[in-house]
Amino acid sequence: MKFEVTILGCGAALPTSKRFPTAQVVQLNEQLFLVDCGEGTQIQLRKYKVRFLRINHIFISHLHGDHYLGLPGLISSMHLLGRRKELHVYGPKGIDEIIDTNLRHSFTQLNFELIYHFTNPKEQEELHTTETFSISTIILKHRIPCTGFLFQEKERKPKINKSVIKEHQLLIPEIIALKRREDVVRENGEILAWEKLTLKVPEPKSYAYCSDTKMYERVVEQVQGVSCLYHESTFLNDQKERAAKTYHTTAEQAAQVASKAGVEQLVLGHFSSRYRDLERFLEEAHAHFANTLLAEEGLKIVIDS
Amino acid sequence: MKFEVTILGCGAALPTSKRFPTAQVVQLNEQLFLVDCGEGTQIQLRKYKVRFLRINHIFISHLHGDHYLGLPGLISSMHLLGRRKELHVYGPKGIDEIIDTNLRHSFTQLNFELIYHFTNPKEQEELHTTETFSISTIILKHRIPCTGFLFQEKERKPKINKSVIKEHQLLIPEIIALKRREDVVRENGEILAWEKLTLKVPEPKSYAYCSDTKMYERVVEQVQGVSCLYHESTFLNDQKERAAKTYHTTAEQAAQVASKAGVEQLVLGHFSSRYRDLERFLEEAHAHFANTLLAEEGLKIVIDS
Repeated sequence: MKFEVTILGCGAALPTSKRFPTAQVVQLNEQLFLVDCGEGTQIQLRKYKVRFLRINHIFISHLHGDHYLGLPGLISSMHLLGRRKELHVYGPKGIDEIIDTNLRHSFTQLNFELIYHFTNPKEQEELHTTETFSISTIILKHRIPCTGFLFQEKERKPKINKSVIKEHQLLIPEIIALKRREDVVRENGEILAWEKLTLKVPEPKSYAYCSDTKMYERVVEQVQGVSCLYHESTFLNDQKERAAKTYHTTAEQAAQVASKAGVEQLVLGHFSSRYRDLERFLEEAHAHFANTLLAEEGLKIVIDS
Repeated sequence: MKFEVTILGCGAALPTSKRFPTAQVVQLNEQLFLVDCGEGTQIQLRKYKVRFLRINHIFISHLHGDHYLGLPGLISSMHLLGRRKELHVYGPKGIDEIIDTNLRHSFTQLNFELIYHFTNPKEQEELHTTETFSISTIILKHRIPCTGFLFQEKERKPKINKSVIKEHQLLIPEIIALKRREDVVRENGEILAWEKLTLKVPEPKSYAYCSDTKMYERVVEQVQGVSCLYHESTFLNDQKERAAKTYHTTAEQAAQVASKAGVEQLVLGHFSSRYRDLERFLEEAHAHFANTLLAEEGLKIVIDS
């Protein structure tokens, strides 16, 4: 299935003229999910031609401004554009008060329902699930309550070739069982092994979003083997102490997390405004994890096509 | 004195990829004043190289998001950049709750004092005054409480040429009196007329900011004869009914206000996102007021140099 991430912003607390604060869109088939919503996200959505009325679920990691300050404006624009469909906002308790305070002072009665789902920063939980994928929290360790988000494709049902159906004269209940990965024993004792008769399907893909956090063993467990890990790397190793003190990660540490978790690909982001040249992030990470790339505005990461 | 306005954004409620929401910087000598602060203002401040730690006074016209949503992020950035100096925020009651709610949820204790001054949407009042200029509100008529802002240079003291001082052998008290525009009568009956002995000084300059408002007679009185009037023109005449209903102005109406008030120059802004081609605003205005220009991002209006 289509599984893509578009980076809208990858700066840290201080936006620069070149780097917007954090926001990204995850596309799963035809559904769009917004992950964090820093100031200016609606401008970036327009710039990268994301049709934002198609976003029905917004995930906010934590209540530092660079991760949510674009949300009141985006909600207001959705309202002005005539949205009627309900909008789900997932984030720490408090996001409701922030949004509602803005709406109250502008005397705005939204045309659509805003449904808040408060995340639990202590226990991993599933937030949203469909037939083909699920979205859960990832427990992070930051200065204030904060979660990441894990987008996981569900295991795909294996397919059976028409020629196999014909050859074995498979009946409907037999096909259903085989697709459920169950072997079938016929009355005559013949065994139809699902692994032999079905086509191999690709492994389910997954995407883990981890921003903001210090380097944290629990993250390693939670993102084990994901197809793509977005991990913050606010600093380089020259600011390792500062990273520890402010509950952030260095590029080297992010690469160590990726390596330990055996992920397929690492994307670094949430770069401090003090760094102009980002190539050093790549150099630092490459020593520990080869398949690393740098987030940049407009970057599209294809996880599955 | 130096008296300049820099446009940072001139869009209306819906930002586009080309037009940021409302914000502008007024410079009076070395002082910078921020007028409205739509989403993304801090990004625009950086883009146009305005040193925003030098801003000590911020004026918010009203609590529609496109006029203030950039404020929480700007304040947060000032904090992160180590600001210590107090910051004055002028705006409708409620701006305090909005900012404080954001700060509370991000557990931020500002390093500097935030001083709120609540504007009165019903009576004109002086908000800030120095030896050389003053800043007052302008009463507007919008859907929610809203004021504009009037920046007025004070009358300059006339100067006296050295040759005149020598010729008349003026004494210090006589010079002071003449500069106060008072005639001096000497003991011998000689009259020193201030108008004859002093140099003509330029008329004091003024800048009026009026956004958002419907066409309003009271505005005409309040901006009488200003050097430069920034007036919203959200719509063209094709949307005259919509303008009335939403308490906005058309380009033609803004030009009529400028004409009636006998201002020197008109700047149109706050353009609805529905209009791509802004030349029509100019055409519509020009029929009623010749010296009109269109606001655009980065435009610098020199009121005095």
